Amino acid sequence: MIPHDPLPLAQALIRCPSVTPQDHGAQTLLATTLSSLGFAIEHQQFGPVSNLIARCGTTSPHFAFAGHTDVVPPGEGWHHPPFAAVIDEGQLFGRGAVDMKGAIAAFITAVAARQATAPSHGSISLLITGDEEGPAVDGTTRILDHLAATSALPDLCLVGEPTCRATLGDTVKIGRRGSLTAHITLTGTQGHVAYPHLADNPLHRLLPALKALRTRTLDTGNDWFEPSSLQITTIDVGNPATNVIPGTAQASLNIRFNNEHSGETLTAWIRETLSRFAPRSTCDIRVSGEPFLTEPGPLTTLLTHAVERITGITPSLDTGGGTSDARFIARYCPVAEFGLVGRSMHRTDEAVPIADLRALTEIYGAILDRVFA
Amino acid sequence: MIPHDPLPLAQALIRCPSVTPQDHGAQTLLATTLSSLGFAIEHQQFGPVSNLIARCGTTSPHFAFAGHTDVVPPGEGWHHPPFAAVIDEGQLFGRGAVDMKGAIAAFITAVAARQATAPSHGSISLLITGDEEGPAVDGTTRILDHLAATSALPDLCLVGEPTCRATLGDTVKIGRRGSLTAHITLTGTQGHVAYPHLADNPLHRLLPALKALRTRTLDTGNDWFEPSSLQITTIDVGNPATNVIPGTAQASLNIRFNNEHSGETLTAWIRETLSRFAPRSTCDIRVSGEPFLTEPGPLTTLLTHAVERITGITPSLDTGGGTSDARFIARYCPVAEFGLVGRSMHRTDEAVPIADLRALTEIYGAILDRVFA
Repeated sequence: MIPHDPLPLAQALIRCPSVTPQDHGAQTLLATTLSSLGFAIEHQQFGPVSNLIARCGTTSPHFAFAGHTDVVPPGEGWHHPPFAAVIDEGQLFGRGAVDMKGAIAAFITAVAARQATAPSHGSISLLITGDEEGPAVDGTTRILDHLAATSALPDLCLVGEPTCRATLGDTVKIGRRGSLTAHITLTGTQGHVAYPHLADNPLHRLLPALKALRTRTLDTGNDWFEPSSLQITTIDVGNPATNVIPGTAQASLNIRFNNEHSGETLTAWIRETLSRFAPRSTCDIRVSGEPFLTEPGPLTTLLTHAVERITGITPSLDTGGGTSDARFIARYCPVAEFGLVGRSMHRTDEAVPIADLRALTEIYGAILDRVFA
Repeated sequence: MIPHDPLPLAQALIRCPSVTPQDHGAQTLLATTLSSLGFAIEHQQFGPVSNLIARCGTTSPHFAFAGHTDVVPPGEGWHHPPFAAVIDEGQLFGRGAVDMKGAIAAFITAVAARQATAPSHGSISLLITGDEEGPAVDGTTRILDHLAATSALPDLCLVGEPTCRATLGDTVKIGRRGSLTAHITLTGTQGHVAYPHLADNPLHRLLPALKALRTRTLDTGNDWFEPSSLQITTIDVGNPATNVIPGTAQASLNIRFNNEHSGETLTAWIRETLSRFAPRSTCDIRVSGEPFLTEPGPLTTLLTHAVERITGITPSLDTGGGTSDARFIARYCPVAEFGLVGRSMHRTDEAVPIADLRALTEIYGAILDRVFA
């Protein structure tokens, strides 16, 4: 089962409906394929989460490719079934096509091509989690703990998340913003709308609090980061009676923040704002990632050259977009991210042009050439 | 079946579990009782709703008592069964005791006493609907259409809704605020929170729109009305994913408005505000009642004197609280409302002091004396 083209492996992976934390055979498929390429396989199960560590070679340099087999739920309204891996007009459709089963298939195919032709020295690892789109608690952090405990940490790491904006090759990510989520519950006093003086409408205090949070300019960005951004993701009351003032209201918000802030400073600001505008509120705040930055250096130069050779495009070094597991890896070794065009990720009709899938395989091959040159 | 005391009739009415739109014999009981007092009876059924028009006499002045036999659902947690009409410590317990079967029993008993003693001239009508607590579509408006079509509209009307705040006699209602409900749906573009420029968060446009609506001082009240009030009653998105910008958001609001506004002017204002702050929104607006005012004059003087004679209290002339069917009657003749203390209406353990029931009968008798003096 040596892949010569990333397409069949990408299709087989998409056909495993591995919505976090389910695996549905995706990692077994990888294990079988990587075994046949000479990789040693370790499965690590934490609660419902499957993780896979695969390594070929024991010497330096030790280069790791990190990724995830889990995908976000497909939602409704697809033109092709989300787990059917249908090919239509030169594109492969399916949840995970871009984020990021396509990149895993490309990397493994690049490794297979290299094993077949190049002299083997150094080591290659694949660090694959099933918990990137979920809480990210039982995934990459656990893998890194294990690698640290067994002195098996890589020297360099590439994360295969979709990084490109419009054209394959246009963007390498060298950092990511942090992410903070707050769940706010505001208690008032229920009553009849005709007697507002006997009630206390929690929405009428929640809205000014949300306005104060939403309209502050957190920062204007810096050399490597775009401005931090706050989004209110939901407000829910569930009051069906139009003649009743509700008793409680809930809202959630998410902040993607750059290295001008930390989870701690933002948490303090949210709590202070709520205490001012909405005293009878509780707020559950979770910082799921602090920002990180891999300053331009040998790793970014190597990636840039590989991308230029295959695509002719000089990638911009970027820190935008969501969090990725690179934030955990950055604590241990230089890490950057390069993968497909992300436009359709997390959306209906997620799809990758087959030509991009094959070009990405070539880029990953060119990266391996340079790492082991 | 001539009532000499309102209590047995009130009990018999409460024992008909006439939750809107059910009747369960309540109007048949009234018809039998009013027939024996010489009233001509017309039953009017519209869909599931029973209405009753009873008239005694054909000449002027034509005085009407308006009310409803339907009640709101009892809910849970009563100390006495809600349809058992139990007497306990001088109070009659049951759904409808206050709103408003007690008042119907008091009025009929007052009419019976008058028929037995006073010379008969003029006309008395009872306009009884089974749809006041429900949509109010197949009830009083239909009765009024019928009276208008048959030239049988009254000259004066008293609605027997509970109007008193703390003590029987303290409040006569001479008007009511209008009520408008708006359901707003705002469509944006769903997306990942990390890429807000690719999404359009409907909450970030809904909140400024709601702020503009909520913070306008509609008016400061006037001689007869308290200020109009807008309450946001719910906001619902139902987005459980904290990394997703939602695609739609919904909100509802209710305005209780005085005679400085009309349903039409407020509807136009809401639509204009939404088009400014939230262009991709739809809004379903329902005006369930326009405000009305019966300016102090002969009817209010007559009511005030009757209340004063029986209770020694000078009632305040008020326009507060919810809507009532008087809003429909006001289009045709002077109308005011006077009834029991409303504190327990729509609540568990709804109850009326028997002494109040009897005093209300005397007040209604005194009103009839003055109307036909």
